[in-house]
Amino acid sequence: MISREVRLAARPAGEPQPSDFELAEVEVAEPAEGEIVVRNVFMSVAPYMRGRMDDRKSYVPPFVLGEPLSGGAVGEVVASHADGFAEGDMVLHQLGWREYAVLDARHARVLDTSLAPASAYLGVLGMPGLTAYVGLLDIAGLRPGDVVFVSGAAGAVGSLAGQIAELRGHTVIGSAGSPEKVAHVLDELGFDAAFDYHSAPLFEQLRGAAPGGIDVYFDNVGGAHLEAAIGALRRNGRVALCGAISNYNAPAAAAISNIGLAIGKRLTLRGFIVGDHNHRRGAFTEEVGAWVRDGRVKFRETIVEGGVGAAPHAFIELLRGANVGKMLVRLA
Amino acid sequence: MISREVRLAARPAGEPQPSDFELAEVEVAEPAEGEIVVRNVFMSVAPYMRGRMDDRKSYVPPFVLGEPLSGGAVGEVVASHADGFAEGDMVLHQLGWREYAVLDARHARVLDTSLAPASAYLGVLGMPGLTAYVGLLDIAGLRPGDVVFVSGAAGAVGSLAGQIAELRGHTVIGSAGSPEKVAHVLDELGFDAAFDYHSAPLFEQLRGAAPGGIDVYFDNVGGAHLEAAIGALRRNGRVALCGAISNYNAPAAAAISNIGLAIGKRLTLRGFIVGDHNHRRGAFTEEVGAWVRDGRVKFRETIVEGGVGAAPHAFIELLRGANVGKMLVRLA
Repeated sequence: MISREVRLAARPAGEPQPSDFELAEVEVAEPAEGEIVVRNVFMSVAPYMRGRMDDRKSYVPPFVLGEPLSGGAVGEVVASHADGFAEGDMVLHQLGWREYAVLDARHARVLDTSLAPASAYLGVLGMPGLTAYVGLLDIAGLRPGDVVFVSGAAGAVGSLAGQIAELRGHTVIGSAGSPEKVAHVLDELGFDAAFDYHSAPLFEQLRGAAPGGIDVYFDNVGGAHLEAAIGALRRNGRVALCGAISNYNAPAAAAISNIGLAIGKRLTLRGFIVGDHNHRRGAFTEEVGAWVRDGRVKFRETIVEGGVGAAPHAFIELLRGANVGKMLVRLA
Repeated sequence: MISREVRLAARPAGEPQPSDFELAEVEVAEPAEGEIVVRNVFMSVAPYMRGRMDDRKSYVPPFVLGEPLSGGAVGEVVASHADGFAEGDMVLHQLGWREYAVLDARHARVLDTSLAPASAYLGVLGMPGLTAYVGLLDIAGLRPGDVVFVSGAAGAVGSLAGQIAELRGHTVIGSAGSPEKVAHVLDELGFDAAFDYHSAPLFEQLRGAAPGGIDVYFDNVGGAHLEAAIGALRRNGRVALCGAISNYNAPAAAAISNIGLAIGKRLTLRGFIVGDHNHRRGAFTEEVGAWVRDGRVKFRETIVEGGVGAAPHAFIELLRGANVGKMLVRLA
């Protein structure tokens, strides 16, 4: 049995190019004791993967040149040598960017597809969802009455962060990168205000949407967004530093010039990585799972067709902001 | 009775000039019931006063043009219409920049000059001391084993922040602005390492002093210092944003380009104002007071002679880094 996989051919300089990836075919190995074979159905492309393409020490090791990429995927168990995993089970695991994955079953989780379709476990009920939950509640320490600003509000993380704040009764403002995204954020996600950050200076738009200022900023973008938020934050404001997509392809990160305001305003800025917060998965699944089941949390997916060979294109387009909600590639 | 006082004649553009200040004479008012008259002996000049000279909303209101400046001072009660205040008492209050102050005694505190000379209550045992204590322990959340970096290490706040960390058994690195200050920080204050930030690139010097990285940065300087510290901080590192003297006279604040590192490193940056933390004065006075009495905490003062008329010059020189330890003006 043959599996196609995407390998890192070259480390991208700036924006990734199709030539930075190569498609290869490999024989699917026989599963050993304790292993399963999964036919991947959806794989995730996510902004954090851009960092792993650089040869730079970070919180996850860099991808290896010539080796297949990896990341979240869901698929169907087609062979199992592991207790608790049966053929036909839908599982979540970390060996995306390939059609078939052979892995130790301890690194896979059987999904409850009665709650939501399997793909949701790559988005609203998965890593991006937990990121939104932890970032808003634990890192930013959401408090009653907080006015919340979320950047990347149409993205996988931002769309949930804003909705959680809405559902808890907060005023929520979002920024996104196109009029269509803004309409989605306002009309489907129910944010109180949203703006297209291309259409006018950020700080002016943020001031317009929140004339009295903001208390929490959930940062998915970095750079000018962070600077505008620091300007708009009120006393004792808090920033969850979650991502900085504006910098990922940039040769040099955009500088911010107003961090000094954090002194007089008593601001707290805190960076986090969702992998440190797995102890919150139970509370997250209970709360957000119920909202998803009841339809109170909306989630969109942008699904790229074309199989594993389309994954590099999907990833490149993700970094250009082509997605609404979670960006996925359909593999089978 | 005549008192000379310094008034704000013009709002400084960039570095303050002598012409931004004017010396005036006023008749000392008769104290009302509950008031005292204080002959000021020392007044403080402090970096935060620069911000109040701009017409800009901040955590304290701006100084008013044509009115006397204010700030910490210690002096002798020469007349009292208030219970608990006797002629000859040494008191701390906030009406500096003048020879005589007439004030509601509730805004003054009688000093224990058996513990330390009155001037110490403007520095190591006063607002700068409490700032160092709160910033290090509460804001940066000093933890066992932390490697600590303090900028402005020869200044009133930095010199104590570093010594508190030393006395609690931490490795402490300081930066200062001249070879003489570096020698003071190493030889008198007992820091483990120190460097002159003018003598070589900051990040290289910090790496040299702390090859394994740092866990806490106590920021008195901002700008390039903050950027270098973010680069050197280890996972879960913490920054107490206390001051940004490098920006105070600058037309535009220096930008930092590496705040994005806070995500992967899980950094927390937190700004604070000492006035929010008066509930810590008891613990501070007990701990640091004992160290001062036992001589375990060293403190220097840079005393400018020449009376109240010399205060503008002292302030201008403070912002140029002319002080070692607390900068004071002797008024009587």
